[in-house]
Amino acid sequence: MLYYTLVFLFISLVSCQPTPISGPLITPLPQTYTFGSGVIRLNTGFFDIAANIESDLLNNAILRYQKLFFPFGVGYPTNNPIATLNIKVSSDSEILQLYVSENYTISVEMVGQSPQLEIIADTIFGAMRALETFSQLISYDAQSQSYSIPFVPIYIDDFPRFPWRGLQIDTGRHFIPTSFLMHIIESCAYSKLNTLHWHVSDGESFPAESKSLPNITLGAFGPLAIYTIADMEEIVAYGLSWGVRVLPEFDVPAHSFSWSTAFPGIMANCPGDSDLDGWPLSPALPEAYDLISKIYTDMSEIFIDKYFHSGGDELPYACWDNDPVIANWMTQNNFSTTQAEQYFEDQITNILDGLQKTKVIWHDPFANGCEVRKDTVLQVWDNAQMAQQVVNAGIRAIVSYDWYLDMQIPVPGHTHYEYEDTWLDFYAADPLMGVTTNTELVIGGESCMWGEQVDHRNFDVRVWPRTIAIAERLWSNENVTDTNKALTRFDPFSCHISNRGINSGPLYPDYCLLTSDFSQYSHQPRFKLTKEQIKNIYNSQK
Amino acid sequence: MLYYTLVFLFISLVSCQPTPISGPLITPLPQTYTFGSGVIRLNTGFFDIAANIESDLLNNAILRYQKLFFPFGVGYPTNNPIATLNIKVSSDSEILQLYVSENYTISVEMVGQSPQLEIIADTIFGAMRALETFSQLISYDAQSQSYSIPFVPIYIDDFPRFPWRGLQIDTGRHFIPTSFLMHIIESCAYSKLNTLHWHVSDGESFPAESKSLPNITLGAFGPLAIYTIADMEEIVAYGLSWGVRVLPEFDVPAHSFSWSTAFPGIMANCPGDSDLDGWPLSPALPEAYDLISKIYTDMSEIFIDKYFHSGGDELPYACWDNDPVIANWMTQNNFSTTQAEQYFEDQITNILDGLQKTKVIWHDPFANGCEVRKDTVLQVWDNAQMAQQVVNAGIRAIVSYDWYLDMQIPVPGHTHYEYEDTWLDFYAADPLMGVTTNTELVIGGESCMWGEQVDHRNFDVRVWPRTIAIAERLWSNENVTDTNKALTRFDPFSCHISNRGINSGPLYPDYCLLTSDFSQYSHQPRFKLTKEQIKNIYNSQK
Repeated sequence: MLYYTLVFLFISLVSCQPTPISGPLITPLPQTYTFGSGVIRLNTGFFDIAANIESDLLNNAILRYQKLFFPFGVGYPTNNPIATLNIKVSSDSEILQLYVSENYTISVEMVGQSPQLEIIADTIFGAMRALETFSQLISYDAQSQSYSIPFVPIYIDDFPRFPWRGLQIDTGRHFIPTSFLMHIIESCAYSKLNTLHWHVSDGESFPAESKSLPNITLGAFGPLAIYTIADMEEIVAYGLSWGVRVLPEFDVPAHSFSWSTAFPGIMANCPGDSDLDGWPLSPALPEAYDLISKIYTDMSEIFIDKYFHSGGDELPYACWDNDPVIANWMTQNNFSTTQAEQYFEDQITNILDGLQKTKVIWHDPFANGCEVRKDTVLQVWDNAQMAQQVVNAGIRAIVSYDWYLDMQIPVPGHTHYEYEDTWLDFYAADPLMGVTTNTELVIGGESCMWGEQVDHRNFDVRVWPRTIAIAERLWSNENVTDTNKALTRFDPFSCHISNRGINSGPLYPDYCLLTSDFSQYSHQPRFKLTKEQIKNIYNSQK
Repeated sequence: MLYYTLVFLFISLVSCQPTPISGPLITPLPQTYTFGSGVIRLNTGFFDIAANIESDLLNNAILRYQKLFFPFGVGYPTNNPIATLNIKVSSDSEILQLYVSENYTISVEMVGQSPQLEIIADTIFGAMRALETFSQLISYDAQSQSYSIPFVPIYIDDFPRFPWRGLQIDTGRHFIPTSFLMHIIESCAYSKLNTLHWHVSDGESFPAESKSLPNITLGAFGPLAIYTIADMEEIVAYGLSWGVRVLPEFDVPAHSFSWSTAFPGIMANCPGDSDLDGWPLSPALPEAYDLISKIYTDMSEIFIDKYFHSGGDELPYACWDNDPVIANWMTQNNFSTTQAEQYFEDQITNILDGLQKTKVIWHDPFANGCEVRKDTVLQVWDNAQMAQQVVNAGIRAIVSYDWYLDMQIPVPGHTHYEYEDTWLDFYAADPLMGVTTNTELVIGGESCMWGEQVDHRNFDVRVWPRTIAIAERLWSNENVTDTNKALTRFDPFSCHISNRGINSGPLYPDYCLLTSDFSQYSHQPRFKLTKEQIKNIYNSQK
């Protein structure tokens, strides 16, 4: 929205300069759009959103955006004409999965004295993306307390460049309350990210309740730091209601020490390694596989997405090598350590096959020389050379290198005066940079907010506005690279989401007019679901 | 407080490790303290704080801490004995100024069955510091919902290493609402910082109302981005009520373009310089000095501290040299550019003398070769060599180099994996490192949060927990440098202030139990003053 004073003159210390406004400011930038110079004044009392299909999920989204379109209240009553935003969706399917169409078009024009506002989409999820875009077309004038759509007529034809556009979070290192996870889901949807990669457990804690193994949460930080089954179901349903897949990660064999609080004896013994963060499970114990199978079975019911992340990163080989029991087991089986890893990963694949889940892992086993089945998705945290190797092997890749939000210097050698300007490095990091063949197997990427020094107190500020740059890189055309033009859009977009309670700071000197709601939602979701709605959303995915 | 689960085992990626808890966790670390192994259980219903003097300011502080001692509510009623914290203050003066004593002692012991709790301080401000320390001695047990003081008996004898311990903020680049400035003042007091250096105006905006020149706020970002006189008085009074001096900065001659919105024609003409952020006033125009005099006179009434910061940084000499009017004026007066700067600074000194204010400026005029009167305080942003030169000239210095919170790499060459670990660089930067003579003239320092990319949406997270390291460096003994021990205290302290609504994140994997109040105060002050109180506090300073 344009409810916002842009100041172009002062760019002290900021390494790129916003270009003057010359059209609607939409983030991520649509694939194609045109605009004019007219204005449609809106009458909040006579503004409707109508859809051509019956869908609870779409109706939820419409109710949300009826509020989000007019963040500063109803404004002064005017005699502007009645306006209806007509949504036409081809399919009434409510199934959210990777590769679902998110395409949409928007047209905003005056026909005679009458505003014609239209969204056309293949799916309800495309319609959700369109509603977000539409909200960014509406401008608020604080002086007259009125809303309008400038730059009319507007025609937008939009679709994502990559189907997998994620934000990875980490509740293994710090517990983040359920309400805040829903807040995070909103922030994803606002920037058209469609995947919340939830790294649930790590060496430090296991915060997820398990139906069949209730003791597993003895590995949580404490009794108040646990996600109940109902909590997780609410998070998954909340994600679906915003068109955001929730991909769970229960990391094995490393980063799993917390599993052993309830089940001692399943870990490898790593003599001399005091950093328990990365301690792995033993590959030699049937009990370990049995435990994983039970946990994954329970979690598969809750996390209904077809993909399931089993981690697989940073296995400390020395720890397996130096454990006499494991070493002996490897000798008996004639396994090298890599073969032991292969054996472990094969058991995980079997478990996930049984649960009809597609495996996602970090690229490490592949890099170690394990064979990886072609239906796997490999998340590459290393570099483009590794991504190239992955896709050359015919395996799909999602990329995360260069997008580690926790790092002081996220891209080696790239530094700025101001820390927030690391968004420029994220923006420059194209997923296909350095990947020249089999590029169609790069299906997206993820912004990673590891949790060693992050919880709900500082999450928003560590993630936003910098992840806007990543969201645009994953959605918009690859030739959208002008940082000055991006700055002109990103800073108002940061203000736009701040008005919905996301603590996303500014990128250059200016003024962001905030609603009085800002603080109210800063640690909360804006729109809670009822228990009935959660149940219905789950049922809709069957 | 100890209401908090420490996890020592997992330190992945964090470059130092907390040491195990072996006594009270107080931040900043007191100068001397001893402790035992006893426990005093507290009964919140029978806990009093009593003072030996009548002081509205001290009474305010007592009322605040009666709440802050017990953040998780009253807990379960117990039959623990009545306890009174007795405060004995030598002076009932309410005057807050640089060099006021902040010394205090605390003793916590059992005499028979009776808790003896005592604070002794020279001044009410020392008593405020003691109350904050005392709040950190109280531990909350979530399971039994009860409070206690462990490690009894405790004896603390504490005083600050430096008298000037500041946080610098910048409302010239982004407007920060009055309520949030009061929130910032609280965060300063919690960490025993005693100075809020308020860089009010800059090239981008002039947000302060002036009694004699009401048009000056035409240079604000907009009509909603203005501090009224009442706002500023409230902020100053709020600071006093927490023992925090509010030092105003109205930066001249550079960083003043916003003055010219209401008063065009007072600026130097900088041909070819498109960055208006640093444009300076003209030194050749009597109108410019008249304007400054009026603004400074108005602001001196509001900002009652004896010190007044007039900026003086980053004067672009070329801009004065290349302006024909200024060049001509310099020729007529036989001035070099440095002499012109000297002339300008002398006029400022005269204005401030007339207002009975002591001048504070950045070190730039001194570095440029201007003579600086010995009663000035120079804020050094460059490096220790410059600080050494300043004190060698017999001038007091406050240091800020190495403490720029906005920078990606705050200390050149010092980098970490995680961004938050820049606290280690701040902690290592002793104000006397590289200053070997006249060290008594280094009177403190300031943590600087420049505002190009910061406003109230992201302020807390950009400042905290990293400024804890700076606050301790300025308060505690210079030999307190163990980063592992610091980590053991800083992380719980971050949780401690988070429970008061400061969004200060974690430093390593652990769990911070937060009160339900957390979000409520995250963009607000916790304790507002009435108009009557604001008036009384102003009167108390006469």
